[in-house]
Amino acid sequence: MPTFPRDQWYVAAYGREIGHELFSRTVCNESILFWRTQAGSVTAVSNRCVHRRFPLSQPPSALVDDQVVCGYHGFTYAADGRCTAVPGQTRIPRAARLTSYPVVEQDSFVWVWIGDPAKADPARVPRAPWLESPGYATVSGMEPLRARFGLLVDNLLDLSHETYLHGGYIGTPEVAATPITTEVDEDAGIVYVSRHMDDAECPPFYSKSTGLNGRIMRWQDIEYMPPCLYTLHSRIAPLGVLPHDDGTDPGAFHVEVVYAMTPETDTSTHNFWAVARDFAQEDQSVSDFLAEQNRTVVLQDVAALNALEKSIAAEPEGYQELSINIDTGGLAARRMLAKLIERGSAAPSAAKG
Amino acid sequence: MPTFPRDQWYVAAYGREIGHELFSRTVCNESILFWRTQAGSVTAVSNRCVHRRFPLSQPPSALVDDQVVCGYHGFTYAADGRCTAVPGQTRIPRAARLTSYPVVEQDSFVWVWIGDPAKADPARVPRAPWLESPGYATVSGMEPLRARFGLLVDNLLDLSHETYLHGGYIGTPEVAATPITTEVDEDAGIVYVSRHMDDAECPPFYSKSTGLNGRIMRWQDIEYMPPCLYTLHSRIAPLGVLPHDDGTDPGAFHVEVVYAMTPETDTSTHNFWAVARDFAQEDQSVSDFLAEQNRTVVLQDVAALNALEKSIAAEPEGYQELSINIDTGGLAARRMLAKLIERGSAAPSAAKG
Amino acid sequence: MPTFPRDQWYVAAYGREIGHELFSRTVCNESILFWRTQAGSVTAVSNRCVHRRFPLSQPPSALVDDQVVCGYHGFTYAADGRCTAVPGQTRIPRAARLTSYPVVEQDSFVWVWIGDPAKADPARVPRAPWLESPGYATVSGMEPLRARFGLLVDNLLDLSHETYLHGGYIGTPEVAATPITTEVDEDAGIVYVSRHMDDAECPPFYSKSTGLNGRIMRWQDIEYMPPCLYTLHSRIAPLGVLPHDDGTDPGAFHVEVVYAMTPETDTSTHNFWAVARDFAQEDQSVSDFLAEQNRTVVLQDVAALNALEKSIAAEPEGYQELSINIDTGGLAARRMLAKLIERGSAAPSAAKG
Repeated sequence: MPTFPRDQWYVAAYGREIGHELFSRTVCNESILFWRTQAGSVTAVSNRCVHRRFPLSQPPSALVDDQVVCGYHGFTYAADGRCTAVPGQTRIPRAARLTSYPVVEQDSFVWVWIGDPAKADPARVPRAPWLESPGYATVSGMEPLRARFGLLVDNLLDLSHETYLHGGYIGTPEVAATPITTEVDEDAGIVYVSRHMDDAECPPFYSKSTGLNGRIMRWQDIEYMPPCLYTLHSRIAPLGVLPHDDGTDPGAFHVEVVYAMTPETDTSTHNFWAVARDFAQEDQSVSDFLAEQNRTVVLQDVAALNALEKSIAAEPEGYQELSINIDTGGLAARRMLAKLIERGSAAPSAAKG
Repeated sequence: MPTFPRDQWYVAAYGREIGHELFSRTVCNESILFWRTQAGSVTAVSNRCVHRRFPLSQPPSALVDDQVVCGYHGFTYAADGRCTAVPGQTRIPRAARLTSYPVVEQDSFVWVWIGDPAKADPARVPRAPWLESPGYATVSGMEPLRARFGLLVDNLLDLSHETYLHGGYIGTPEVAATPITTEVDEDAGIVYVSRHMDDAECPPFYSKSTGLNGRIMRWQDIEYMPPCLYTLHSRIAPLGVLPHDDGTDPGAFHVEVVYAMTPETDTSTHNFWAVARDFAQEDQSVSDFLAEQNRTVVLQDVAALNALEKSIAAEPEGYQELSINIDTGGLAARRMLAKLIERGSAAPSAAKG
Repeated sequence: MPTFPRDQWYVAAYGREIGHELFSRTVCNESILFWRTQAGSVTAVSNRCVHRRFPLSQPPSALVDDQVVCGYHGFTYAADGRCTAVPGQTRIPRAARLTSYPVVEQDSFVWVWIGDPAKADPARVPRAPWLESPGYATVSGMEPLRARFGLLVDNLLDLSHETYLHGGYIGTPEVAATPITTEVDEDAGIVYVSRHMDDAECPPFYSKSTGLNGRIMRWQDIEYMPPCLYTLHSRIAPLGVLPHDDGTDPGAFHVEVVYAMTPETDTSTHNFWAVARDFAQEDQSVSDFLAEQNRTVVLQDVAALNALEKSIAAEPEGYQELSINIDTGGLAARRMLAKLIERGSAAPSAAKG
């Protein structure tokens, strides 16, 4: 049983990670080679030479103009995966071609399509516009997780854990105590989870960045677009300050916390995180503070989820968890993921590892 | 085929290891959480939160009075495993309960019952009274073994290995050369192995602690109560000095070497060892010497048994050992263990790891 | 499906590695104990005591004259594997005997026969006479490979990789560009691959050792005697200088590059390499240069092949490589190995590891 769906867009990297040099990352068990072409677009092809499977990202493999030359026997490939030269002969076998992955670079992310390329629709790449919007300032990073993708989905869909795992950072008693509402849009493929705390303690993460203190309004509106993209629309305001009827909300501070969750293997995950704010955009000290705090929070999650993966590995088959009200969002996400897994094309075949 | 029996008492820790703080140890593939309650008794419950399997021993999980609060979402449990609070709701699901393990603290050890709790009889916990008896002074420790439990049983039931593996410490030529007698009490569940050396070299372990030198009487009487508890009643005396007819034995030195062998996993073992003596009880230098010497001897066993576990992992299936007279005790122990395994309840189900 | 054939001679060590002390190495999944007897011959027996499988190479196991005494219980074995003493009894069980391996020491190598000893014919051990011939000076070494044996066979049968993987050392453009001829002698069990470059750049490896510069003749004649022994007859000469009709070749430099490829396990290999030359035999600086250069080249292969083994572990079952003209020699070698595997006796049984 796969732990993630295929025929989906996944974030492979930040655009800033990929320049005109060889870069590889494993996404959904597939080792992929990336580079930014001289024209400026990102290319993604299989990282395994068709001849004797040498990793094209490993020296002495090299990028020459916009072609990659295998470091073992010199097989040479263009950015679209087509083989352009082999050693010792001029005829190039027809089958000599690297798998090429559909790529979209958008909202600071490099998205790749994992699955049947015929089904890839660039218009359906989920959006996180705040990350490159002039009205927002963003800090971001990525932390690798030695735990399966689904454990991170569970984690982010149920923020009651902030009170316990992230106490002193973003957790206060009200998060765990306030009930949530969950809504599922099957057609759009979105899970919504909301928790509106109208009279809550202001955690350090927000007091130090907004200047608010004491009791505040704190709204958390989650929008999860399975499998990969998650946004927490976080609204922080003085007590009683509501959005205007026209939708504008000048009295509040808005933080868009974005996660892109990408399976590396069946039991490891790339955890991309970004925090975009619509206030103090020019204040570097606020950027530094939020970057450091959010990274700390992510590393608390990493430690917890890595422990869960070890628990799973050691537990008897068929072990059953117990779920309660706080899990409504996470369970809705699991159901939607199960449908996507069922609907997606099959993996090339089980890896042997 | 399991490598150890269930429905048995096993030593999980020394009592001194467990205070009013969270402590975990894996026993027979089960991760168990211990703490000493404010009333002073030791409690043992499953170390896995029923909600999302977070390890209750891992920070920020915390002990609050006599309740443990899960560091992930705040599920709270009393010392008997009963859930007393969950986040975001007042109703506590009936199934929210940690597995609770029967515990007996006795003879300096904390024993837990692994298997069907209905069968646990605290009166049947095996005894090692010397470890806390006023007439004895005891040194003790624990060394982890990356080898299956059964290899340690083999090791301790056949002390002829002292001559080779522990030469210069407790081994002399007479140990390997002197025949043993083996007796099995099926009803009591005890294997007895005796080796009485009436004229033997005194090894450093005993010469330095007793002051005897040269030739001595050295009796080794093993009493093994499968699966966990092993005692070597060691009697050291000048040549020809025998116990009195009334059972008293004032002319001899008595050392009770106690081992508790507890499977951690199918291929690793907790090796608890203790050495109790009825002489020089107040002499710290003798205590220090025996502690250091016995630990060295145990580490020699650890190195040997770890190597055997590697041999087993690399050898073809169905490899056959060859046994000789010295193995009579070990083979009797294996037969008794096989019966206990057959009789015991089944494990929750095979671990996936 | 085994990855190497049995009923074959394999190089276990250089003769210089084995003195009058215990030495062990795993060959074809079998841990073997070696020592040089007082009479000077090399003996090879199973490294596992028949009693409780203790490794006879591990202290406190010890060599006493020409017998090995097990460090666990003192089982004692002669050089032919026969048990000569057991503890606590005088009768030695008939089955107490270590597996003994046929051994031939020749051409600086210690060869062992893996498989059915009845089929071992010392006269059929492949020869590499240059390694101990007075007309040649030799440098040699061994590098362990965390990759299956077959990947090293592929590597050495297709030297076009020199141009890419070993550029700046032994590779020049002409190697990859010059076509090969392949010949198979099924009866003798030899694969021949030749590449005669009559006008080629002289790589540093040869220019610094021979003093030749600029354009040279460079002939590569491979002789592979599956499974273990590989020789590259390398002939370097000024442009147009050919061997004489009588077979003598005074105007050329000859280098015999010898590899012995020995499976350690299914996915690791002992990579013995030697470079023998018929020029500058007394010049230590040439020896040092060739030793350092060839070791560097071997380590470049090791890094590449270790990466391939990881690729294999992560790839889907049934992944297909693509082969071209340069692979003719390697594919011929694979076919011959497949026949040897089919013809060889079965392994004792699958290892459990």
